[in-house]
Amino acid sequence: MFLRSKWLLISGILITISSVAPAEEGMWTFDNPPTQLLQKQYNFTPTKQWLDHVRLSSVRLNDGGSGSFVSPNGLLLTNHHVARGQLQKASTPEHDYIRDGFYAESPSQEMKSTDLEVNVLQTMENVTDRVQAAIKNISDQKQAYEARQRVFAQIESESLKKTGLRSDVISLYQGGEYWLYTYKKYTDVRLVFAPEQQMAFYGGDPDNFTYPRYDLDMAVFRVYDNGKPLNTTDYLKWSTNGAADGELIFISGHPGSTARQDTMSQLVTERDYREPQYLQFFKVRIAALQAYAAQGSEQSRQVQSIIFGLQNSQKAYQGRFEALHDKDLVAKKQKEEDDFHRLVKANPAAEAEAGGAWAAIDGAEVKYRPMIKQQTFRRTDSTLSSLAITIVQYVTEIKKPDGDRIAGYHDAELESLRFRMLSPAPIYTAVEEARMAASLTEAQAQLGPQDEFVTTVLAGRTPQQAAHELIGGTKLTDPKQREALIKGGEEAVASSTDPMIVLARKLDPISRSMTNWYQENVQSVEIPAGEKLGKARFLVYGKSAYPDATFTLRLSYGTVKGYPMNGTKAPYKTTFYGLYDRANSFDFAGPFALTKRYIDGQSQLNLATPLDFVSTGDIIGGNSGSPVINKDAELVGLVFDGNIESLAGDFVYSGERNRAVAVHSAAMIEALRKVYGASKLADELQGK
Amino acid sequence: MFLRSKWLLISGILITISSVAPAEEGMWTFDNPPTQLLQKQYNFTPTKQWLDHVRLSSVRLNDGGSGSFVSPNGLLLTNHHVARGQLQKASTPEHDYIRDGFYAESPSQEMKSTDLEVNVLQTMENVTDRVQAAIKNISDQKQAYEARQRVFAQIESESLKKTGLRSDVISLYQGGEYWLYTYKKYTDVRLVFAPEQQMAFYGGDPDNFTYPRYDLDMAVFRVYDNGKPLNTTDYLKWSTNGAADGELIFISGHPGSTARQDTMSQLVTERDYREPQYLQFFKVRIAALQAYAAQGSEQSRQVQSIIFGLQNSQKAYQGRFEALHDKDLVAKKQKEEDDFHRLVKANPAAEAEAGGAWAAIDGAEVKYRPMIKQQTFRRTDSTLSSLAITIVQYVTEIKKPDGDRIAGYHDAELESLRFRMLSPAPIYTAVEEARMAASLTEAQAQLGPQDEFVTTVLAGRTPQQAAHELIGGTKLTDPKQREALIKGGEEAVASSTDPMIVLARKLDPISRSMTNWYQENVQSVEIPAGEKLGKARFLVYGKSAYPDATFTLRLSYGTVKGYPMNGTKAPYKTTFYGLYDRANSFDFAGPFALTKRYIDGQSQLNLATPLDFVSTGDIIGGNSGSPVINKDAELVGLVFDGNIESLAGDFVYSGERNRAVAVHSAAMIEALRKVYGASKLADELQGK
Repeated sequence: MFLRSKWLLISGILITISSVAPAEEGMWTFDNPPTQLLQKQYNFTPTKQWLDHVRLSSVRLNDGGSGSFVSPNGLLLTNHHVARGQLQKASTPEHDYIRDGFYAESPSQEMKSTDLEVNVLQTMENVTDRVQAAIKNISDQKQAYEARQRVFAQIESESLKKTGLRSDVISLYQGGEYWLYTYKKYTDVRLVFAPEQQMAFYGGDPDNFTYPRYDLDMAVFRVYDNGKPLNTTDYLKWSTNGAADGELIFISGHPGSTARQDTMSQLVTERDYREPQYLQFFKVRIAALQAYAAQGSEQSRQVQSIIFGLQNSQKAYQGRFEALHDKDLVAKKQKEEDDFHRLVKANPAAEAEAGGAWAAIDGAEVKYRPMIKQQTFRRTDSTLSSLAITIVQYVTEIKKPDGDRIAGYHDAELESLRFRMLSPAPIYTAVEEARMAASLTEAQAQLGPQDEFVTTVLAGRTPQQAAHELIGGTKLTDPKQREALIKGGEEAVASSTDPMIVLARKLDPISRSMTNWYQENVQSVEIPAGEKLGKARFLVYGKSAYPDATFTLRLSYGTVKGYPMNGTKAPYKTTFYGLYDRANSFDFAGPFALTKRYIDGQSQLNLATPLDFVSTGDIIGGNSGSPVINKDAELVGLVFDGNIESLAGDFVYSGERNRAVAVHSAAMIEALRKVYGASKLADELQGK
Repeated sequence: MFLRSKWLLISGILITISSVAPAEEGMWTFDNPPTQLLQKQYNFTPTKQWLDHVRLSSVRLNDGGSGSFVSPNGLLLTNHHVARGQLQKASTPEHDYIRDGFYAESPSQEMKSTDLEVNVLQTMENVTDRVQAAIKNISDQKQAYEARQRVFAQIESESLKKTGLRSDVISLYQGGEYWLYTYKKYTDVRLVFAPEQQMAFYGGDPDNFTYPRYDLDMAVFRVYDNGKPLNTTDYLKWSTNGAADGELIFISGHPGSTARQDTMSQLVTERDYREPQYLQFFKVRIAALQAYAAQGSEQSRQVQSIIFGLQNSQKAYQGRFEALHDKDLVAKKQKEEDDFHRLVKANPAAEAEAGGAWAAIDGAEVKYRPMIKQQTFRRTDSTLSSLAITIVQYVTEIKKPDGDRIAGYHDAELESLRFRMLSPAPIYTAVEEARMAASLTEAQAQLGPQDEFVTTVLAGRTPQQAAHELIGGTKLTDPKQREALIKGGEEAVASSTDPMIVLARKLDPISRSMTNWYQENVQSVEIPAGEKLGKARFLVYGKSAYPDATFTLRLSYGTVKGYPMNGTKAPYKTTFYGLYDRANSFDFAGPFALTKRYIDGQSQLNLATPLDFVSTGDIIGGNSGSPVINKDAELVGLVFDGNIESLAGDFVYSGERNRAVAVHSAAMIEALRKVYGASKLADELQGK
């Protein structure tokens, strides 16, 4: 599946632009759509009206995915696996919505999400000149870094005051451009429909990131505004026939992060330092959670979502790891860098700008590599511990002028931050304890017993003792306790005896020191070097390309199309026949079982109905839940994954084999009507 | 699919034994079954009675495949693609049995095969001592080669006279052992049932050699003896349930050729010389036949079988080619050779025997490599031309003492040879002309216009002219003409003005000279070197292994089991649901179409019935049509292919991913009863 992994965001500090993109490659910003390519390849040029309509119909979910409005009354379509976190938070031992699914036939039955925030991109403004002016005459890199952060905060804060909208300054083309994006924000988001996890995530971890697939990975929310269903004209009409073979399609969503313009030295860091450690990290944590789940069905229910998320990341990182060990891929990346380097040398203006940038980045990377172990393993892996640190930092930061605060605590971010800090989502202390113990055990093994973080957390205890005392002693499970600390400010936090807050006070300086080191030695060097490379790219290639992904709205395009696979061809679509084949082929075992609804409902289904399909659209984690639309901007599918070949997509795109995997629009209607008895919802989606 | 390619036989001159085989690897002779491995892994030891029964129930088809008796009244089960040659020969523009299938409800409707010979292995006798005695004191390699051929012919001829059975001396363990095999021979073989080619070969060339598959690749003949259905107790009973997940199974069949014990220098010859030229050969011929087929449906009907055969070989060779370019595989083979070499050096007896064998083979290979181009491209690619050469050589050879004849013309081979020479199978002259013209064009391009073969065939004409005049002028399409020449002997052949015979007289010395060169420079060196390596292997490893495949009867064993594929799992079986999924997924296009019977008959079928399944049994081309049996020797499936990973099987076996693909016994019964209205046949198969 293609949920945006939070881990992806930690990497990709430096973002550069590619040279000219090959056909169907690219995650284009809405201010610079690939109109010439589209006109040439498909004889189609989207109008401004088309682009505005699609943009305003597209949403970002703060759980890490994408979605779209699909009715005039605020229906929001996304993936089940994007909604899963909310389903988990709403579930209890008595009502397991992940296992059983959910359907609200009437508005009164719709179920309010615990802490889901939805963003819709309203405006995009190029603020590159203002950012560059702010750092123009500062020669010291650390000071320049701070000045850049200050001007970001200033622009965001001004915009927030002026518009009342969520306002983010984002870096595109590796700092070649800076943009101010404003978003309408919705936090009253109610669940209307979700299938059973078994059918949404059919095939489980084995089938994840593969195709052919048979998943109904959908969920439907309704967005409310002032207590009423959102009334909007910007929604995607449901296509009558859905995606057809060879058809031009668009994907409008929020790809999380790519590293296609990373320098070779940055890729080496990924390959030889970060990836192996992350894979180890996933392994340990998954094993701990599986051991916890093995205790019983209720325990299993509590951690299912976390395990799926970790397994998803593990499989994605395994794919990245293999891609980076693929000699052809590495040779291709090296050639790209060599070509760019040569063009820069041949262009005096570009050479003056960026000639020294590669060496600067190489130097920073060499310094950085030994520190990655700390970044990876200095973790408590506990929601309570994260909340504690956030509270400790929050009460200090908000007292500073906005521009002086550390990342995450600027004015423009505070509302969303408080929404998360005060989330009433249930926290299972036994889960917390198991995760924390495993995490501390691994930290001790990887970093040694003398590591400052390790000695601070353990304080002479075993990892199990420490986890037991910390989790057992804290009151932060109660949102009211957190609210009291936030309201009480620095004084309340300083005098708190809650063991998790006590620990967070000790960890805060360690965390700040790591952040400072990273800013001074890596970011202060690589951000300006990246800006220089970005400008040099514009000089030698022009602005004919798309920027690396940044979890901001992008438009991809492509063709509905099968591909060569396993010595034969993968078809452009699958059908419900294939779902029943796979279930029977595995004798209904494990991830290949069918729910009772599908066993009983088979005779109702038209099994020839398309279920999933693939297209050449260029996507990455974060695109989960993106609508697939035709050139009339009608919804023909719902992106939920990429195929196994697309796992190299962080670094390269291949139109030959990379595929976006989507639920077919016809499958959603067929299942709603025939299996779930949700004809009312189907009618609303189809505008009947 | 796993039809034995004739091309495979050209290679594999040298056969050695492996060291100890890993679990489930091996194509074992019936005199040396892997009883210890079976007992240890499966707690099962086949009795002598079990082995005899299975052996006598297994058949070899001279069209290049395997089969088994499946009723007391001579029913013979094999693959559609093994029977396809006979279906093609029986078809006319009015009755296209390949397209439409065939079913004889009553014995009178059963259709006699044109030229199908079936062999059943009766006895196996170790004649190593006698062969070794015959060459013991001969130091000249050429003389030793000839003496070896003479003693082979002598043993075969004696056995034929004594038993009346087809008698073949075969080389196992690379000449470490020689065996006399005798076969009962049947030539009255009548077709009872064949499905439509579209369903037998569902998925066509794309799906060939892949899995998951949805093929009903079956055909049923009835063997007649003295004009009556063969009455036998040695047939395989039909299993009630068929293959189940994790079950122990056996495959009894005739693997054609493997090169697992080839030396590294022989593998280099394969990789760098033979494979690239063969791939070129297949490309050219397939293109010529496709151009011919494009002329119309009748033309397409005529060449369909040849195209399928060539595409099958092309895909198999492409897999071999890729395997030989796989660095891990090559490293593994190198290590095997290094280990063996080291053990030989450490063992004085083995070192005395075989110390010089590698160098001898290396020397022969280096000499051989430049000649492969001639062997590959000096071809007329015409049935009529092959018949002409065979007739010209036949009339000369049979006048010599048996021991002095060239290969293929010994007494023991003559009956089968005449059966083929006089086959009434239709020969389409337009097809012949197209194939010959393409072949000669390529010969000219590859070998140059001055090549002796090229100048002899073309004689100043263009390839098109030569093909047109030769094919247009010959009368050999008529079996009576061939019979007259054979009866007329050397005189009739010498005075014939048939242009194909005239040409064959000129090509005969060229062919003999190539054969002589090959015998003197390659076989005379590599056969004794192989014998030495074979003996050395027995000395250092003991006789704990199986010999390379030689298109003689072998027993493989393994487990019904899925495998890791495409980032996920391939299931152990597929179902009819999957057939309908694949058809719908491709919108019924090309090789993924369904016949009317299956569209109309869907509602009759239980779609959950297993269709195909995989097991870890070790097979290779030639195993097509082999029965898959359980430990009670009941038929649970019908081998028809290997998966794409198994294409490296010529060189190595991997239990992790190599899989034999078979039709499930339940699918055959379900289709016969529900789709083909062939319940009478199903009843006979099930012993009802």
